[in-house]
Amino acid sequence: MNGNKRERNIKLTIAYDGSRYDGWQKQGNTSNTIQQKLENLLTTLLEEPIEIHGSGRTDAGVHAMGQIANFHTFSEMSVEQLHQNMCEYLPKDIGILSIEEVDLRFHSRLNAKGKKYQYRIWNSKVSNVFERKYMYQIPDKLDVEAMIEASKKFVGTHDFISFCSNKRMKKSSVRTIYSIEIEKLGDEIRITYLGNGFLYNMVRILTGTLIEVGLGTKNQETMESILEAKSREAAGFTAPAQGLSLSQVYYQEDFY
Amino acid sequence: MNGNKRERNIKLTIAYDGSRYDGWQKQGNTSNTIQQKLENLLTTLLEEPIEIHGSGRTDAGVHAMGQIANFHTFSEMSVEQLHQNMCEYLPKDIGILSIEEVDLRFHSRLNAKGKKYQYRIWNSKVSNVFERKYMYQIPDKLDVEAMIEASKKFVGTHDFISFCSNKRMKKSSVRTIYSIEIEKLGDEIRITYLGNGFLYNMVRILTGTLIEVGLGTKNQETMESILEAKSREAAGFTAPAQGLSLSQVYYQEDFY
Repeated sequence: MNGNKRERNIKLTIAYDGSRYDGWQKQGNTSNTIQQKLENLLTTLLEEPIEIHGSGRTDAGVHAMGQIANFHTFSEMSVEQLHQNMCEYLPKDIGILSIEEVDLRFHSRLNAKGKKYQYRIWNSKVSNVFERKYMYQIPDKLDVEAMIEASKKFVGTHDFISFCSNKRMKKSSVRTIYSIEIEKLGDEIRITYLGNGFLYNMVRILTGTLIEVGLGTKNQETMESILEAKSREAAGFTAPAQGLSLSQVYYQEDFY
Repeated sequence: MNGNKRERNIKLTIAYDGSRYDGWQKQGNTSNTIQQKLENLLTTLLEEPIEIHGSGRTDAGVHAMGQIANFHTFSEMSVEQLHQNMCEYLPKDIGILSIEEVDLRFHSRLNAKGKKYQYRIWNSKVSNVFERKYMYQIPDKLDVEAMIEASKKFVGTHDFISFCSNKRMKKSSVRTIYSIEIEKLGDEIRITYLGNGFLYNMVRILTGTLIEVGLGTKNQETMESILEAKSREAAGFTAPAQGLSLSQVYYQEDFY
């Protein structure tokens, strides 16, 4: 059938408001996922079964400013036409920022060298009415300096198993965090994590732990002992999904 | 009953996401209004019937970054305590930015000297997933220079009856627009109107007219004739509510 058609590999850069989705990829019985929405549309548009690969899963309720995914197709539709069609038919909470044809060997997950995540905290008793769905509101004042000090203990190569929700983790739980930047922008506290990879819920548990330091319920001196404990119980709570966004995925070794 | 209690006048500065409301104030049978939400809560908190006065109505779906309202009360609750309570019990799409006690003679509508409105257009085929509820998306490219030229015709004191949806308007429809600023911020086109007052739907019809100029379906040379026509039919369409926000209300004569 596809004898004289050329196989192509298409890379998508995707933004989404995760509020009403069960995450990027289905886990168990859920099917209201961003991946599913994209696969359904692409299968219709390109008239062949399309399977897409994301750079990684994002949890239910987590957003993305720059998720990367790719898929193979024999369709000859131009990337411009495909972009036009996707923009037209996708729900408005999923945006295709760019589409390009890439080398057939490119794989969005296997080739990823690093990722940037952003966690946004709204530190005020007054609701931020326009961005409330993209931040986690904490009315009590956080000690940002203490959070910055604590965050330094997590930078570097560590076994982050204490910051992983997956109890059946069998592969290595060693990851490298290149930087954790904590900025105060008015009443917003923005935490940006740059690393070579993150375990399940790792960014949210790191954030919950830093929030507990900011509230004074955890001492910044105990961060190393949390890493050493190699136990989820040692770390802080899992910060809510709505504050988290996958900002960027890197494919070059020298991204940092 | 209130014989030895002091009457106070409380001024509120309010932000709201108007998406799920029937506007600031009820018109006809609707009751899901921001004013109603505030009055219900204040009546409960202060244990007396509270009637609030907004600086003006905003239509269903219109937002506010700085709506002003005031109400009289005999309650002795401190403004700090009141602020705390309001933040706690209001839905997250209504934010009380500040509360202050003001002179008894202050009236948020009658004393208003000017208002600033902002209309946000997202001029791209790609959805802006995070701000989609606060902008009006137009996929076709707008000619911003033509819009700027056209907007100059509306600055000044004019009879704006062509830009008013209220057909039974009996009072004067003369208003002064001090400035219309049109900025291009990436793919966003932001139009900021500063005037001494605006008729019903006036900002949305001005915006719709400017959009038609930007799309080339209306000639910028015809703007004066629209004013002269004194007819709603001469002007452009009513731009959707979701792009509009009441930015600021001014109470000093020299605000511009």
